Amino acid sequence: MLGPEGTYTHEAAEKYFENLEPVFQSTITECFESDTQTAIVPIENSLGGGVTETIDLLREEDVNITAEKVLDIDHCLISNEDSIEEVDKVVSHPQALSQCREYIQSRGFEKIESSSTANAAAELSSGEAAIASETAAKVHDLNTLESSIQDKKSVTRFLIVNGEKEAEQKTSMILEPGDDRPGLLHSMLGCLAGQQINLTQIESRPTKEGLGEYFFYIEAESGKNEGKFQKAVKCLKTYSEVKIIGSYRSNKE
Amino acid sequence: MLGPEGTYTHEAAEKYFENLEPVFQSTITECFESDTQTAIVPIENSLGGGVTETIDLLREEDVNITAEKVLDIDHCLISNEDSIEEVDKVVSHPQALSQCREYIQSRGFEKIESSSTANAAAELSSGEAAIASETAAKVHDLNTLESSIQDKKSVTRFLIVNGEKEAEQKTSMILEPGDDRPGLLHSMLGCLAGQQINLTQIESRPTKEGLGEYFFYIEAESGKNEGKFQKAVKCLKTYSEVKIIGSYRSNKE
Repeated sequence: MLGPEGTYTHEAAEKYFENLEPVFQSTITECFESDTQTAIVPIENSLGGGVTETIDLLREEDVNITAEKVLDIDHCLISNEDSIEEVDKVVSHPQALSQCREYIQSRGFEKIESSSTANAAAELSSGEAAIASETAAKVHDLNTLESSIQDKKSVTRFLIVNGEKEAEQKTSMILEPGDDRPGLLHSMLGCLAGQQINLTQIESRPTKEGLGEYFFYIEAESGKNEGKFQKAVKCLKTYSEVKIIGSYRSNKE
Repeated sequence: MLGPEGTYTHEAAEKYFENLEPVFQSTITECFESDTQTAIVPIENSLGGGVTETIDLLREEDVNITAEKVLDIDHCLISNEDSIEEVDKVVSHPQALSQCREYIQSRGFEKIESSSTANAAAELSSGEAAIASETAAKVHDLNTLESSIQDKKSVTRFLIVNGEKEAEQKTSMILEPGDDRPGLLHSMLGCLAGQQINLTQIESRPTKEGLGEYFFYIEAESGKNEGKFQKAVKCLKTYSEVKIIGSYRSNKE
């Protein structure tokens, strides 16, 4: 999983897996290339959108999505200090700092940027607090001085790849049409709409072959009627290369 | 425009504007909020995909796209040194370093990360070279020791906002459907396909109201038949809020 210890990915993994033996990687690419049996990677955040590195790797690598896990991102103020009065600086990843801007302003804290929320928690000096997950506080034996300090609720969805199969409610796939023509995406989506299959996510990403050449990452509610979904896939194949990356249980917010 | 001096945005602006009087900003948000009459911002790269910060700001801010400019990203090795033999370290933004990985390996250079390609060129020590644009070499009066050192060709497309209108070949718009229902995106794309209007870019982005709630940034070839395009927009409005952000000349690669 994406490390270091105490990231939100670590928190999602602790909530999803019963007996977790984590192996931490420093990039999403390394998570996909790792020898560990199962991997957990972020796919989407409700404020930041699709995680493009994950989407590109799902196209390139040969993996099977077996589950998804939705996690509320609950930023905590964690520190070696015992009380909030002793804190005058906050350390965190720029994205976490920006998600807590109003809170930081109201407290009058000085901001220090770090490479990850978990790293912020690992290297605190006197008078400093990190903005990080509750898991980071536990891992580094720090005090949680305040929780839910974000300006706006945010949720991250993670995918578990090459894990144990549970149920088949959603299917992820890569659609890679060779040629473009007017209405092509409309025709492809018609394959799904024609079978009353709902689309829960669509992301267009460059194929890296030139401007205007895209592939699509799609998640569809495939599980309601397996026969209809197979018909939709057959229809899609008349327009595009189709790579099915896995069918799995839906984890609603 | 996105600064500092010598960025690829600066290079695109120099190629687009005849009499450029640049004002540099340190973030894309500041470009949109700046008092300058006209702004130029990146919208898409052929390797990295859509520039999400720009797409989100096009939805939030009240601007008018008046042109686009496509620029080949031509990474150069630039330095105070006179010959490549005197260079043993390269400094650049992590993305530029990764785009020249094979070249750096073949030369056996040590890599140093900087916050932008232009900043790398501004602060070179002895024995160092920056990977940056030809414009950065000119701005900082450095020698271009080698050009086109990227492993793979890449192209960035920029938008000019609130500039002078030229022609109306393409239209950018934000589609924001209030409710989701199966087949909604298919129906909306049908408004365009039904009038034989080609879609040149589509990006889905979160509305920041919760997981699964998206808006769409769309570029369409609107200029071939104005009447048909107006019919398509009327059709789109039956499904979604439609915000037209501008019609402008297409700048093909």
